[in-house]
Amino acid sequence: MRNEPPELLHKWLWVQGRKFRYEVNRLRLPNGSEGEWDCVRHPGGALAVPVTPEGQLVLVRQYRFAAQGRLLEFPAGTLEAGEAPLTTIQRELQEETGYQAHKWQSLGEFFLAPGYSDEVIYAYLATDLAPLAQQPERDADEDMEVVLLSPQELAAAIDRGEGVDAKTIAGFFLARHYFKEG
Amino acid sequence: MRNEPPELLHKWLWVQGRKFRYEVNRLRLPNGSEGEWDCVRHPGGALAVPVTPEGQLVLVRQYRFAAQGRLLEFPAGTLEAGEAPLTTIQRELQEETGYQAHKWQSLGEFFLAPGYSDEVIYAYLATDLAPLAQQPERDADEDMEVVLLSPQELAAAIDRGEGVDAKTIAGFFLARHYFKEG
Repeated sequence: MRNEPPELLHKWLWVQGRKFRYEVNRLRLPNGSEGEWDCVRHPGGALAVPVTPEGQLVLVRQYRFAAQGRLLEFPAGTLEAGEAPLTTIQRELQEETGYQAHKWQSLGEFFLAPGYSDEVIYAYLATDLAPLAQQPERDADEDMEVVLLSPQELAAAIDRGEGVDAKTIAGFFLARHYFKEG
Repeated sequence: MRNEPPELLHKWLWVQGRKFRYEVNRLRLPNGSEGEWDCVRHPGGALAVPVTPEGQLVLVRQYRFAAQGRLLEFPAGTLEAGEAPLTTIQRELQEETGYQAHKWQSLGEFFLAPGYSDEVIYAYLATDLAPLAQQPERDADEDMEVVLLSPQELAAAIDRGEGVDAKTIAGFFLARHYFKEG
């Protein structure tokens, strides 16, 4: 993708939150139109599609205040400043699931919500999984449980609309060559 | 998914932008943790997976200022107040692509970025496509072109990382029973 930044004419507003910065800017787009646009500036996220030696996928069912409920997601986390995505996701996989992976392969990357966010998700296949000897302590505001599903079960959960989010469906698609959906 | 809203303790800040509202609130989550969380309140979006009688998928290559470039996406649009998702996407398909569909089927719905946004995408399969007699006029700030791809070509573009976003990959997955990826 060719990089075509808009021209920044005026910074109206910005708010630094927990994980992203909200900005309202006056921009000139490549086609010449000018106006105020609001968006999320996000450091990016990293996602694992973890597969156990038995061929089970490791997911988390996680409370999301914005969604007002519990969603079924692949383990993922927000990049810290200057952090490589693979470092992020190796840490997050351990913290969220209690597994570590000995083999990592890039599955590519994608924009999550490009209408209003610059967040890119870096996706990895994580294999050669083994449970950690010592299970991790959770952050106080994380409210999640680990769920093991076969690829067929995850496909069925997506088709039934059981609260699987976009990055999880996209990561599952990117990993499809590595397992039979059946 | 069971509805479990957080308890709203204090509204710190909100900004109404073009398509969404940015909020910072003090919340109490179901597990008892309290704090300030920032998020996007979005009216929701609707997406079409449009298939021509020849089996081609209709996509748009669209400039996205947040992504600083052009992404390959299924036609989609933001719900207007009180609008049914199907009404939104029937209008957006015509405006963005110059096609209308005579048959619509729900493919389900998913959260787009539940870590910080309540946006739900409602996905539809759009078939019996025909070009409009009169091609639509574009909004001044829309900068897009129509792209026809076979399902195999779209899968290859996703695998090569050619700027296909999460909702498009997820919509493609949800529609997979309706065409052979090959």
